Amino acid sequence: MKLDYSKIEEQSLPNFKGGEKSMEAKMFFDGKCRILKARLQPGASIGMHKHETNLEVIYVLKGNGTFIYDGESCPIEAGNAHYCAQGHTHSLINTGTEDLEFIGVVPEVQAQ
Amino acid sequence: MKLDYSKIEEQSLPNFKGGEKSMEAKMFFDGKCRILKARLQPGASIGMHKHETNLEVIYVLKGNGTFIYDGESCPIEAGNAHYCAQGHTHSLINTGTEDLEFIGVVPEVQAQ
Repeated sequence: MKLDYSKIEEQSLPNFKGGEKSMEAKMFFDGKCRILKARLQPGASIGMHKHETNLEVIYVLKGNGTFIYDGESCPIEAGNAHYCAQGHTHSLINTGTEDLEFIGVVPEVQAQ
Repeated sequence: MKLDYSKIEEQSLPNFKGGEKSMEAKMFFDGKCRILKARLQPGASIGMHKHETNLEVIYVLKGNGTFIYDGESCPIEAGNAHYCAQGHTHSLINTGTEDLEFIGVVPEVQAQ
């Protein structure tokens, strides 16, 4: 199936996972996989959280920011991907001066 | 972890899944999730295949093409995502005049 983001409404999710400001996101979820196109304004963040039953792949479309993955800080920019394996923790902060836009894929995976 | 595609070597995969021409791809796989940044030149395709143990999410970065998903044809262009759920079949053809560039995420998921 196709996700045409020009036809999906954007939701505002304040303090997402305990982060700063809000995440604006276009979300799809069928119980097995979450697919989102989202953006964080400068200074906005997704709070630290653990992926217990799923994993997450993020591909940065625009802007730049910093991931904290298992406590380690890592800068990221448009054209990079970030992988948070199952059982690991991460957060994402827009440390740049423009919106940080990304695609996120969060599939539910086998129990560890 | 970060995937910096400027540092990952591109592989050429001729007749990928039985498709035409070749797919050029930068691949990551840890046994649990495959993450690829790939491109198909005009006329190139990924052949029809079924996702038995995994699912696939594709986000189109550049160009346009056509997915065939469970026998149904669907045009796709830069900015759209495509979702092939577990147990379903798909193929992708670059029907455009420029390279079709995309991100693919293929996680291994729970048995059906």
